[in-house]
Amino acid sequence: MNGAESLVRTLLKSDIDTCFANPGTSEMHFVAALDQIPGMHCVLGLQENVVTGMADGYYRIAGKPAATLLHCGPGLANGLGNLHNARRANAGIVNIVGDQATYHRPLDAPLTADTDSLARTVSQWIHTSTRSEDVGHDAALAVRAAKTHPGQIATLILPSDASWKDGGVVAEPLPVPTPPTLDPHVIEQAARMLRNGEKTLILLSGQGILAPAQSLVWSIAQASGAEVMADFMCSHLSRGRGRLQIKRVPYNTDVARETLAPFKNIILVGAKPPVGFFAYPGKPSTQYAPDAQLLTLSRPDQDALAALRMLAEELNVPEVSIPDPGPRPGVPSGEVSSEGLAQAVAALMPERTIVSDESITFGYAFYPHTFAAPAHDWLHLAGGAIGDGLPVATGAAIGANRERRVINLQADGSAMYSLQSLWTQARENLPCTTIILSNRQYSILIGEYENVGATPGKTAMDMLDLGNPDLNWVSLANGMGVEGAVASNLDELCDLMRASFAKPGPFLIELLT
Amino acid sequence: MNGAESLVRTLLKSDIDTCFANPGTSEMHFVAALDQIPGMHCVLGLQENVVTGMADGYYRIAGKPAATLLHCGPGLANGLGNLHNARRANAGIVNIVGDQATYHRPLDAPLTADTDSLARTVSQWIHTSTRSEDVGHDAALAVRAAKTHPGQIATLILPSDASWKDGGVVAEPLPVPTPPTLDPHVIEQAARMLRNGEKTLILLSGQGILAPAQSLVWSIAQASGAEVMADFMCSHLSRGRGRLQIKRVPYNTDVARETLAPFKNIILVGAKPPVGFFAYPGKPSTQYAPDAQLLTLSRPDQDALAALRMLAEELNVPEVSIPDPGPRPGVPSGEVSSEGLAQAVAALMPERTIVSDESITFGYAFYPHTFAAPAHDWLHLAGGAIGDGLPVATGAAIGANRERRVINLQADGSAMYSLQSLWTQARENLPCTTIILSNRQYSILIGEYENVGATPGKTAMDMLDLGNPDLNWVSLANGMGVEGAVASNLDELCDLMRASFAKPGPFLIELLT
Repeated sequence: MNGAESLVRTLLKSDIDTCFANPGTSEMHFVAALDQIPGMHCVLGLQENVVTGMADGYYRIAGKPAATLLHCGPGLANGLGNLHNARRANAGIVNIVGDQATYHRPLDAPLTADTDSLARTVSQWIHTSTRSEDVGHDAALAVRAAKTHPGQIATLILPSDASWKDGGVVAEPLPVPTPPTLDPHVIEQAARMLRNGEKTLILLSGQGILAPAQSLVWSIAQASGAEVMADFMCSHLSRGRGRLQIKRVPYNTDVARETLAPFKNIILVGAKPPVGFFAYPGKPSTQYAPDAQLLTLSRPDQDALAALRMLAEELNVPEVSIPDPGPRPGVPSGEVSSEGLAQAVAALMPERTIVSDESITFGYAFYPHTFAAPAHDWLHLAGGAIGDGLPVATGAAIGANRERRVINLQADGSAMYSLQSLWTQARENLPCTTIILSNRQYSILIGEYENVGATPGKTAMDMLDLGNPDLNWVSLANGMGVEGAVASNLDELCDLMRASFAKPGPFLIELLT
Repeated sequence: MNGAESLVRTLLKSDIDTCFANPGTSEMHFVAALDQIPGMHCVLGLQENVVTGMADGYYRIAGKPAATLLHCGPGLANGLGNLHNARRANAGIVNIVGDQATYHRPLDAPLTADTDSLARTVSQWIHTSTRSEDVGHDAALAVRAAKTHPGQIATLILPSDASWKDGGVVAEPLPVPTPPTLDPHVIEQAARMLRNGEKTLILLSGQGILAPAQSLVWSIAQASGAEVMADFMCSHLSRGRGRLQIKRVPYNTDVARETLAPFKNIILVGAKPPVGFFAYPGKPSTQYAPDAQLLTLSRPDQDALAALRMLAEELNVPEVSIPDPGPRPGVPSGEVSSEGLAQAVAALMPERTIVSDESITFGYAFYPHTFAAPAHDWLHLAGGAIGDGLPVATGAAIGANRERRVINLQADGSAMYSLQSLWTQARENLPCTTIILSNRQYSILIGEYENVGATPGKTAMDMLDLGNPDLNWVSLANGMGVEGAVASNLDELCDLMRASFAKPGPFLIELLT
């Protein structure tokens, strides 16, 4: 058995059964092993940022890591943007990066690059297997790292000779470490905060904002009078009927500071202290009140559910059910607006829909207007590196075994970063409905430019405007085998959404906003 | 004057007048400075690998560096693939990477990444300007590094506060260092080699294969009986009538070894000792005969032209003119083939055409059939990270002030890596004719897979085949504002090429191969 075969068999034993791939020559023995050993679903992405973004979306929905297959340092480099986002989303991914043979590397052949340094910028675990005998065991270590709560990026660099040489040994799955224990004193301190009568915020991210934690959070909030909010940076929320009706900390740093100013105490559940996405001249970097007390109830690597349970017990709170959000919105009509799009999504989405939201500026009204939608999952860009919406939607559809509708609310500028995803949606016949929010500019940057205190002139607009020529998203989708149509009002949008939801495969709607 | 203004003014003073850009929030003050200070041509790319690839193509044709404008570590990461290629091509580029404000970085806001480590993997010069007072001087250092022979990647990381704070000082251009001197003993040694009667190869890359060096090379070869060949890894050749009719060392490592086996001596002019692109089980990594003597006449950082002049003098060779390649090929007809496409290119290309060749497997016949074309420049992928053909073509057109036709011979799989380039071609109305070699598979990998000793089964073909669904390149081009059409034989191809060459803007031909 060669190293590559031991790798495939070890991954399968460790319950890794999906591999997002864009292979090259140095991975051919791995490809051959995947071909010969049944059990791995291999999904091709036509550029590596699609590959890594799919693995992120897959993890968020499947709840277990996929493998990626990348080609040398430059192939990894192409996928780093979405690995950055996946790291911020605490996604578990096992990257297999094929590389030059150990003895060939010193000759500095053209594709030779500093694969290790590249991997290190996004990986919590990294290792190079230099002997075929070690590949199986190293793979088991990589899977263990990827599965370690709340999910980590593990990168195994595989020189081609370690892949092709004999001596491979299949490794048994390794036990995944349990999250670091919670400090009972912290639980008591949180309870004291919640009892002291001061205005207190429970700020949620990670596991703390998913369905299993939400009724606990709500019971604690109801009993204590605390408010509840989601961190701006949260990658995955359980939303809709039966779930919390909360808002996120706003993106705009002035509005965020106003929003957070009243709180004397902030209890962080899987969230970090809220800071600005960027710094601005003369404005503070942190968004909480200067005299606010911040308490980390659970770090992202700890068990938020257990922490909330201990806190509820400490406070002895009665269980209360999450309030009803009222009637489901009706189908909207008329001119396109953020509110109208949100209503359309809420009115028409099937049960258990997954929303991949990379709406950037257009999404401001999405949250309040979708509280009364059926229960659904909502995925956000967590790392700020634009271009994850399409591949995350694609990977999420695979993570849900094609059994759930995926609606991708997708800004046009960001969509151009990873439009190749549409081809994979067509090839895999995925139930993905992409709604391109076509405003033909980098709107967020025009706003940021105006914050500098100037109006963009021609040179600036040359860098901020996506018109001239306008992108034709229906042509782009058709070019990759995906049907599409333009909607210029909400009625057309709703007709196209209905038609798309009735069919198993992908569809793209260019919504002129 | 703020740091950003001092940066723009310093770049302009140093003769950097083109900026390929995809900005973000942390670069808004730089964008504002570009807007307010006239003189910089800013070209938007819709993904960073397009931006960096354009800068590479620009350098190869303009012969001077452009700036790039990239957004934080992840924006740089998206552009690393083509920076890897640019480094291998010895292109000079000044990357300006905006980043978090110095005091904001420790807070680990979402887009924060290890920008420095990312930059280090591709840059010969790297620096972070932490004070607005230093930005101008640091920019002058960056330009000097980029212009240092034969061209280097210089990356200036610019925290947003260094950009927006006052105190900026415009710096004068710094003198560019002259290349390291040549050792006269090496020249003498080369002369001895060429006189000793053994079979000798002069292997060229870099400056050694451009027009000014070619008649020297030819005179030396004619006088000494040496053979002349281009390195497989050469990014830019002067070709066509009046230029050397030589071949490259083949890609296939067996064929390369056979080709190089007869040579007892190899004189390297800007080339490195030839090694395999990849290692293969049981095959040597190096491609020259084990007993061959290798002599580096000039390293890439030395002056190849001076070295060749000294060698010609040492040998006292008479100047002979490069032989005529015979009549220009006629317009071909009939079925599509590599030979036929090459003939069409040779028959129809305007004078001073630039060819951007990322043909991968289909290009085997291009060289011999284009010797008798008009004088032209031929650009290759130098680093092996696929996806440079389209952006290099785009940047080359800008580097030639839109005055020269660019023909991009472009494999379909690689084209999908950076197809966003087409939009920039449309926006800038560039004279780019893209010929997509549409075989609907990663052919090179199917060949490499078969080298492993197996026939690809379904799982392997799922990763090697680009069909299901077929890409429709005309739709893709139309979606980005570029006209296009399909050619299924050479007659249609020639008609479309003629039509395209008659118009100033871009055009795409999907050639079914």
